[in-house]
Amino acid sequence: MKKKNKKVNAAILVIGNEILSGRTQDKNVAFISNWLNSKCGIIVLEVRIIPDIEKVIIKHILELSKRYNYVFTTGGIGPTHDDITSKSISKAFKLKYEFNVEAYKILEKYYGVKEFNNPRKKMAQMPRGSKLIYNPSSAAPGFIIKNVLVMPGVPSILNSMIENCKKYLKKGVKIISMTINLLTVESKISKQLGSIQKKYIKSVSIGSYPFFRLGKVGVSIVTRSEKKLLLNKCYEDIKKMVKLKKIKIFKYD
Amino acid sequence: MKKKNKKVNAAILVIGNEILSGRTQDKNVAFISNWLNSKCGIIVLEVRIIPDIEKVIIKHILELSKRYNYVFTTGGIGPTHDDITSKSISKAFKLKYEFNVEAYKILEKYYGVKEFNNPRKKMAQMPRGSKLIYNPSSAAPGFIIKNVLVMPGVPSILNSMIENCKKYLKKGVKIISMTINLLTVESKISKQLGSIQKKYIKSVSIGSYPFFRLGKVGVSIVTRSEKKLLLNKCYEDIKKMVKLKKIKIFKYD
Repeated sequence: MKKKNKKVNAAILVIGNEILSGRTQDKNVAFISNWLNSKCGIIVLEVRIIPDIEKVIIKHILELSKRYNYVFTTGGIGPTHDDITSKSISKAFKLKYEFNVEAYKILEKYYGVKEFNNPRKKMAQMPRGSKLIYNPSSAAPGFIIKNVLVMPGVPSILNSMIENCKKYLKKGVKIISMTINLLTVESKISKQLGSIQKKYIKSVSIGSYPFFRLGKVGVSIVTRSEKKLLLNKCYEDIKKMVKLKKIKIFKYD
Repeated sequence: MKKKNKKVNAAILVIGNEILSGRTQDKNVAFISNWLNSKCGIIVLEVRIIPDIEKVIIKHILELSKRYNYVFTTGGIGPTHDDITSKSISKAFKLKYEFNVEAYKILEKYYGVKEFNNPRKKMAQMPRGSKLIYNPSSAAPGFIIKNVLVMPGVPSILNSMIENCKKYLKKGVKIISMTINLLTVESKISKQLGSIQKKYIKSVSIGSYPFFRLGKVGVSIVTRSEKKLLLNKCYEDIKKMVKLKKIKIFKYD
């Protein structure tokens, strides 16, 4: 029997020359990671961005799918010559790359028989045994094969599909986060913050991030834990330290 | 003797829980990649985003520094307990983690002897043998050790430092890029585009990226090559195809 509240993790594999070259700013990593944590209690432990090259995709799919509970890929499932994600994943898992009957029907219905040309048909090809991740915005589905969830690269389409991944994912423990923004500099609090981190080393992770916002210089202290009580205690310790040092809190949200 | 115009590559290792969790949107990857290509002719072939965990940092530093000409790290070189990049890299390369005399002097001068406290002194610690990457905006320098260039995570600071990396990098061949934005859908051009890609398979890479912009649906065709003549030829072939198919060009810049 599976334990309740166990830790579940994931990796994200961003496939696309346009992200690597800096031409396009990735937005999917932050979106998927936030969604996985807040909706499924799944923590993303690694992200990789790689080019559209078959042997490179195969290598990383094999590495990441062994190491993590789930792998989300983004990009490379459209109709053009550079969309090679589905075929590469088929090869990685030594599975036949073939038409998925359900995906074929969805796309034929969406485009109409006349407009359902070969490039569009390509989007119905995937590894044998794939299950579909429905796409409410532009029909062409993503899919899951083994522990790999294959998603498109266009953020608006990916966002519209993400809820349809949920049924394939086991739930983990949600990580709760509390943030306090201080009008100070890191070096003024780092000693005390280090001591608090030591006290809660097994239960809470404390991050310290300098910011420059609305003309103010400050530090965001982000506490993260699965354990609400300990998180609250840790947060209270930080607030005590802030009060003792007479540091102002910055509220901007 | 080294060949002129040889290919030089790099990887980027983003170190930081805040990026992995989706709390913070990374902006450094696109910036570094663009800068490396346009200013140094260096192509980024892989990006990884990993948490602030020593053994994880060590593993990825060793993997990437073996595989690529250069590795750029971002994040984790500030004064707080979660800033463990410099120490981890020292361990990865089995080098002493110690005060860099020059960095110490720079920071002491910047903060003044009185304000130069222990957390700030920490920012002068790095692997033995490191050379500094100067920081014109907030003094605390980055450094290069072996083929790893260690940069901060705050984008404005990183951006101000990037030119100071140049002297440590050998130059590669610049990749030139030409883009045409078409008011069409991918499936209408994918067959012809695939043929053009085959014709130039050894010299030009063609990417096809759907866009939704200013209420228009379209496709950006991005051609990239080191060889200007062949790039121009390929681009002309694409323009011929566009004309033949009576596809409108979208100009928005």
